[in-house]
Amino acid sequence: MIDRLISQIEATQNPTVVGLDPTYAMIPSFIKEEMLETYGKTPKAVAEMFIRFNKSILDEVATLIPSVKPQIAMYEQYGLEGLRAYMETVAYAKEKGLVVIGDIKRGDIASTAAAYAGHIAGVKIEGEHFDLWQEDAVTLNPYMGFDGIEPFIAACNEQDRGLFILVKTSNPSGVEIQDLMVNGLPVYDYSADLVSKWGELTMGTEGYSRIGAVVGATYKEQGIELRKRMPHTFFLVPGYGAQGGKAEDLKDYFDKNGSGIIVNSSRGIIAAYQKDKEVTEKEFAIAAKKAVLAMRDDLQGVMR
Amino acid sequence: MIDRLISQIEATQNPTVVGLDPTYAMIPSFIKEEMLETYGKTPKAVAEMFIRFNKSILDEVATLIPSVKPQIAMYEQYGLEGLRAYMETVAYAKEKGLVVIGDIKRGDIASTAAAYAGHIAGVKIEGEHFDLWQEDAVTLNPYMGFDGIEPFIAACNEQDRGLFILVKTSNPSGVEIQDLMVNGLPVYDYSADLVSKWGELTMGTEGYSRIGAVVGATYKEQGIELRKRMPHTFFLVPGYGAQGGKAEDLKDYFDKNGSGIIVNSSRGIIAAYQKDKEVTEKEFAIAAKKAVLAMRDDLQGVMR
Repeated sequence: MIDRLISQIEATQNPTVVGLDPTYAMIPSFIKEEMLETYGKTPKAVAEMFIRFNKSILDEVATLIPSVKPQIAMYEQYGLEGLRAYMETVAYAKEKGLVVIGDIKRGDIASTAAAYAGHIAGVKIEGEHFDLWQEDAVTLNPYMGFDGIEPFIAACNEQDRGLFILVKTSNPSGVEIQDLMVNGLPVYDYSADLVSKWGELTMGTEGYSRIGAVVGATYKEQGIELRKRMPHTFFLVPGYGAQGGKAEDLKDYFDKNGSGIIVNSSRGIIAAYQKDKEVTEKEFAIAAKKAVLAMRDDLQGVMR
Repeated sequence: MIDRLISQIEATQNPTVVGLDPTYAMIPSFIKEEMLETYGKTPKAVAEMFIRFNKSILDEVATLIPSVKPQIAMYEQYGLEGLRAYMETVAYAKEKGLVVIGDIKRGDIASTAAAYAGHIAGVKIEGEHFDLWQEDAVTLNPYMGFDGIEPFIAACNEQDRGLFILVKTSNPSGVEIQDLMVNGLPVYDYSADLVSKWGELTMGTEGYSRIGAVVGATYKEQGIELRKRMPHTFFLVPGYGAQGGKAEDLKDYFDKNGSGIIVNSSRGIIAAYQKDKEVTEKEFAIAAKKAVLAMRDDLQGVMR
């Protein structure tokens, strides 16, 4: 998937990944009303809201972007119906040719990680293979070390799937553990070195590994140091837009070919209609498209 | 939940938590055959296998133990049907009066953590409350710091739910990050101090916080140091049995009242029939009961 991601960034000239992280509050009222009327005040109603919302946005933006990143928590809170909406979103994005990064941030001991690897590997039942989750890549947490990563690597190599492992996260309190200093280097540098090493086990053909790193946009200097530290690791960069990261901050996150990162925005794109005075609520997907184009232009201004 | 957990450990005189982590390989063949015949080679068949397996074991062991800990990954790999089996397992264990710890190991930025908090808080849809996941407590990952924990604390206080946060995990490669040395102390000590501090926000009435720590049985000396370091933090201890931890190692994990920890065993109990020559396959739940009683006696030997 990493080679395909790189070629799709090249084709769209856009390193934007759209975070499909709907909340109840950002669903336009005409969709809410329709679904509440049809399904009542139920998780199924919310699931149908999310599906309608996401599909409408994907219909507008799919040809302009390389990838989407649905955050599973937003769906998981609505139980099985919510997760059905997650799966339908993943499937629809894949139909549109997008690289789908499931933002699941799992991480556990080996035997458990082997089960979580089903997200990208699928599962076999008496010889029949089921690809139930369908993500092209997923995010993982490194706190438990290689045990929790290794079971995913076979799927990376054999099914061309990918991983993005947390290194330096975009949130304020990420520093509490990640920035502890060990022999003069922060913990996230150690995470970076582990991710680089693990990445050697599953290299793509374009100089980047199928194992990428999550490196926030909100800690610019650290991000630039990490870019130098991990030259073969693709970065998934959260924190642009609503969390405060700016394109200018990301100039040196790109490699010398203007590649090497994808930049996520969620609320800033999918809820753009709530701040865009030129559109009606019914035009929420148009507002998302405008936000994608603005973000693309913003990022193109700093790519080399 | 922490007070209730403590009183149920007292009532059963047993600090054992049974890990309800079924795998396809440990389902007795007569259950497999029945479900494959009824539902075909499908995720639904596996879900029904897991439900039957878990309920049969719960029917035998529920009165002997304080708590169960289903590992969501084992279910999640089978998609929505698998997660339905997880939910039915949680609900059945709750009907039996057990404290249910969902082993989900989630962790994310604040807005996302607020969604994951739905596991213990439930979710509201237009004023209607749905408790879709029903866990009494869940496990979380500390790599992203307090942002990812805070959204759960309201549910701890208002709905008497609980958390167990990874500090020192039982797996071999947990050392890669957790044992990095920061000013003479390992990273896991810093995690421990954070967990202790966060725990002050939601204390129970028995001297322990509703925020506990995951501390593996497989690193005995470190576990004993952590017991001294976090006197108000209840420990969820994985790694006993199949992973190599022994009761003798846990002697000093208990507090001076013989309380302060619950010890998990998964395979060693639920798959006990595969190693127990005195039972037939149909008696798998009896074998689980024997294993629970043996583990209780083993642990009682080292409680003060």
